[in-house]
Amino acid sequence: MTAHAVWPTRPHPIAIVNAQSRTLAKLVRQMKEGCKKDEEAKESTLCGLNPCLKCLQPDILYHLGLSTDTTDFPKVFGDVRFVCMGGTPGRMENFAYYVMQEIGLKINAATKLRNISEAGQRFSLFKVGPVLCASHGMGCPSISILLHELIKMMYHAKCKDPVFIRIGTSGGIGVEPGTVIITSEAIDGRLNPAHEILVHGVSVQHASQLDESLADEIKMCHDPCKDTYEAVIGRTLCAHDFYEGQSRLDGAFCEYTPEMKKTYLEQLQSQEVKNIEMESLAFAALTSRANIRGAVVCVAILNRLNGDQIKTPHEVLSKWEKRPQELVARYIRKSLYYNENDDDSEQPEDETEGAAAGTGAGAGDTQKAPAAEAE
Amino acid sequence: MTAHAVWPTRPHPIAIVNAQSRTLAKLVRQMKEGCKKDEEAKESTLCGLNPCLKCLQPDILYHLGLSTDTTDFPKVFGDVRFVCMGGTPGRMENFAYYVMQEIGLKINAATKLRNISEAGQRFSLFKVGPVLCASHGMGCPSISILLHELIKMMYHAKCKDPVFIRIGTSGGIGVEPGTVIITSEAIDGRLNPAHEILVHGVSVQHASQLDESLADEIKMCHDPCKDTYEAVIGRTLCAHDFYEGQSRLDGAFCEYTPEMKKTYLEQLQSQEVKNIEMESLAFAALTSRANIRGAVVCVAILNRLNGDQIKTPHEVLSKWEKRPQELVARYIRKSLYYNENDDDSEQPEDETEGAAAGTGAGAGDTQKAPAAEAE
Repeated sequence: MTAHAVWPTRPHPIAIVNAQSRTLAKLVRQMKEGCKKDEEAKESTLCGLNPCLKCLQPDILYHLGLSTDTTDFPKVFGDVRFVCMGGTPGRMENFAYYVMQEIGLKINAATKLRNISEAGQRFSLFKVGPVLCASHGMGCPSISILLHELIKMMYHAKCKDPVFIRIGTSGGIGVEPGTVIITSEAIDGRLNPAHEILVHGVSVQHASQLDESLADEIKMCHDPCKDTYEAVIGRTLCAHDFYEGQSRLDGAFCEYTPEMKKTYLEQLQSQEVKNIEMESLAFAALTSRANIRGAVVCVAILNRLNGDQIKTPHEVLSKWEKRPQELVARYIRKSLYYNENDDDSEQPEDETEGAAAGTGAGAGDTQKAPAAEAE
Repeated sequence: MTAHAVWPTRPHPIAIVNAQSRTLAKLVRQMKEGCKKDEEAKESTLCGLNPCLKCLQPDILYHLGLSTDTTDFPKVFGDVRFVCMGGTPGRMENFAYYVMQEIGLKINAATKLRNISEAGQRFSLFKVGPVLCASHGMGCPSISILLHELIKMMYHAKCKDPVFIRIGTSGGIGVEPGTVIITSEAIDGRLNPAHEILVHGVSVQHASQLDESLADEIKMCHDPCKDTYEAVIGRTLCAHDFYEGQSRLDGAFCEYTPEMKKTYLEQLQSQEVKNIEMESLAFAALTSRANIRGAVVCVAILNRLNGDQIKTPHEVLSKWEKRPQELVARYIRKSLYYNENDDDSEQPEDETEGAAAGTGAGAGDTQKAPAAEAE
C-alpha cells in the first residue's frame, strides 16, 4: 500500500520521517528568524463570531468548566485541528484512546487521559494531540451549548481551520442496520434544511448544509473491498424527540396509526433521507455559521422501515458504533500524514511534543507524553 | 413542633410508629383475605398513554438500559411515588443519598446506591425506597426521552399517582441569586404556554401547565423565618439554547445589541417571568398529558438583568443547588409521614422493606437494607 492509498493504514515510517523532516526544517527556520512570532498563530480562522468575544476578560466556558483566566487557551488548545464529538462520555473516551493509537501517538504508561471538562459536570472532553474528543448529550439544545463553548475555545486558542465531526448512532431509513451514513445536509421534520432558533421570541433560521468535500473525503476512507459494511452519503433528518418526532409506535404517547407512520417514513425515503438522529441541525448550522468544515457520520442501528425497538444485542451495537470512529480516525490519519499539498504542516509537532494535553482550572498544565511510536 | 408543622423536620418517632401500625394493620388484613390480590396493584393511574404499550412484549427502554423481559417492573419499581430529576448524574446521586437520610431510610453499610440505568449509558437512575432520582441532561429533547421512558416504567410497574419533580438551576429575572423559583407555568420564547413537537412534519402543541396545588405544597415547605433565601412561585421561560435563545451577549454568536437584550429581559420581567431554563416545557407537557402531578423547582444562579456569565464561586453554587433539593426532600417527607388523609398509606413498607431497590438487567434483584432508623 502506498502513502496515497484511498484508505490509509497506520502511519508508514517514511511518512513519519517526512513529517519529522518538515518539523525540523520549520524549527531551523524559526531559530534563524529569532524571536519573530509565528504569523500563523495571530488569530483563529473562524468567521462570523460574536464581536464582543474579545472584550470578555475572562470568558468563562461554564459548561466546559474552563475559563480564559485560569487556562492558557493558545498553549493548551492552540494545536487542535480536529474536534470530534459523540453522544456519550464513555464512547468519546474510548474514541480518544482509539484515535491516539491510530495516529501513532502514545501516552506515558503512568498516566491516563483526563476529562478536561470534569469541573463543568456536563460534558466530557479529552485531548489527544491535535484531536479533541467531546461528548454532547442528546438533542440540539445540548449540542448547541457544547458548540458555542467549543467555538469560543477555538477562537481564544487561535486555532487554524479546525474540522468538526460528529460521530454517532441513528435510525436508518431503508438501509441495512450497521450501514454508515455521512450526512450531505441536515433537514428538520418538515424536510427544511434549516435550524430554527427563537431570538427575542422571533424565529431565526440558519442553513444546515454540511461540507460536501469533507463528506467525500470521509467516504473515501471506506474500503468497499475490505470493510464488511456499506458507507453512503445522504440526507439526515434531525428530530427533536426520539419517539413522536421520529414517528415511533413505542413511546409513552402515540396519537397516530401504524399506517400514518409507514406513509411518513416512505415519504422520507423518497426524499433521499437515509437516517434520523437528533443533533445534526444544530451541528450543521453552528459550524457553518463559523465557517468551520463540519461532517456528521452516523451508523444506523436499525432500519426504521422494519421497526422501532432496538433489539440488537449490546455486543453487536458496540461493534457497529465503532464504524464511524474507524472512518473518522482514518480520515484524521490521512489528513495528518498523507496530505501532499501540506508542505508546512504543523501536525508532526504533536508527535514530538506529546499525545495529550490536559487542563482543568490550572493554566497550561500540559501533560507530556513520549514521542510517537514508529511502526 | 407538631406533626402538622408547615415545614417538617425529620420523621417524629410517633409518626413512624403510626405509619408502622398502619402497615401492620394492612398486613393482618391481607393475611385474612388470603391470596386475594391487592386491588390497588392492578393498573397504573396514568392516563392518555399509547394504547400499544400493552402489546410491547418486551418493551425495551433503550436509553434507560432496562427491558420488561429482564426486569420485573412491578416488583422493582411498583412502590415508586416520587420521581425526581435534575441535570447532572452527580447531582442526582447526591440527591438520592440526601433524600434517603431526610426520609429516615438507611442503606446497608456494605452497599452503595447503584446507577440502575448504567447499561443505557445516557442517564443515571437511583432508587431510594419510594423515590426515584434521575439525571435528564440538558434541553427538552433530552428530558423528553427520559420522560417517555420513565412514564412507560410507571405504566409497566403499575405505579399509583406518582409525583414528578424537576429540581435544577436557572437564570433568574429580577430575583436575588440563590432564590428558589417554583414554576406556575412553563412558557416558550414567544411566551406561549405550550410545548411544540413536530409529528409527521406537522406542528402539535401541548399545554405546559403545571400542578398548582403541588407548587403551593412545595412552597409551604419553605420556612421564611429560618431559610436564608426566598422561595417564589412564577412563570418560567424555557429556551432551546443557552446563549442566543436566552439573549446572552457571551455566546459564540450574537447578532443583537445589549439594548435589545435589555428590552427583551424587561419584557419578560413585566410578564411575571421569574427565571429561564431549558427543560420545563417538555417536562410540563409530558407529565400533564399523562395526568401526572408535576413541579419544577429551580434555584436562580444569577440575575440575568445584571449579567450573563456565571462568576459565582463553585462552593456558593453548590450550596445554592441544594436549596431546591432541600424543599423537595421536605415535601416528600411531609407527604410520607404527615398526610392526615392517608389512612392506608403504602409508604411505611419502604421502611421495613429497605431503602433501595437496584436492578439492571436481572429481574427483581432488589437490594435489601435495614429498617428505618427512628430518631
